[in-house]
Amino acid sequence: MIEDFLHVGITCRDLERSIRFYETLGLSVVSRIGEVEEADLGRVFGLPKGHLAVVHLAPPAATSKLFIDLVQWLEPPPIGESYPMLNHVGINRFALRVSNIDATVTALRERGVRFLSDAPGTIGEGIRSIVTVDPDGVFVQLVEWL
Amino acid sequence: MIEDFLHVGITCRDLERSIRFYETLGLSVVSRIGEVEEADLGRVFGLPKGHLAVVHLAPPAATSKLFIDLVQWLEPPPIGESYPMLNHVGINRFALRVSNIDATVTALRERGVRFLSDAPGTIGEGIRSIVTVDPDGVFVQLVEWL
Repeated sequence: MIEDFLHVGITCRDLERSIRFYETLGLSVVSRIGEVEEADLGRVFGLPKGHLAVVHLAPPAATSKLFIDLVQWLEPPPIGESYPMLNHVGINRFALRVSNIDATVTALRERGVRFLSDAPGTIGEGIRSIVTVDPDGVFVQLVEWL
Repeated sequence: MIEDFLHVGITCRDLERSIRFYETLGLSVVSRIGEVEEADLGRVFGLPKGHLAVVHLAPPAATSKLFIDLVQWLEPPPIGESYPMLNHVGINRFALRVSNIDATVTALRERGVRFLSDAPGTIGEGIRSIVTVDPDGVFVQLVEWL
């Protein structure tokens, strides 16, 4: 039986570079798994090998128990580029709930984080949102949901 | 301040077809938002328009409050194909925590759900996992974490 969401799986090209980005955003490393090499991993994922480096990240105040399963594939190496547009078929973004989005965006801009729009937009009733991009081009949406 | 994860955003080509798949998997529609058309949505997402149809889905027993933000873009229409491989850069999968993965997989196979491998594999200590694919090719990992 399906109980709950467990994680969002992101494949990056440079684990340390991505960790720095998500830490700047306000997430923390909750588990530094390190290198994993298991035949079953390749089999389950439909790949010839299963050799990767893994870190789990989550917002420090989160109660959902969800985490980002941040993976740098070693064998086989990572391929391709992340989706270039937000209307691209697939998992093209994940969202983080934030309090005080204006202050959050201002603070993140001061730390060098860039956004797709100048300011948060209003979507529906009481939803304010803005989108940033991780070092591999992964879209990360910040949402204030009043 | 970032509080928690909010959702996983999936763009599909056919909303009803994807709803049927996720309901077969065991998720439920928690909110049928319907069509949304807002200029701010296009601006925030870096797209010329913001016209889409949206449904939120989650496992009925979930306590995380997370949901899938399942989107069918209308203007602009959806583009491209989902990542073909699990070592592709980007958000190439999300994971659901399941109890009794063997019985879950057997039950899902009887409902026509297909998996990348014949049986769940063992990854690390106490983690058993298998991967299925949604109608657009999005990888969905099931994980039993003992």
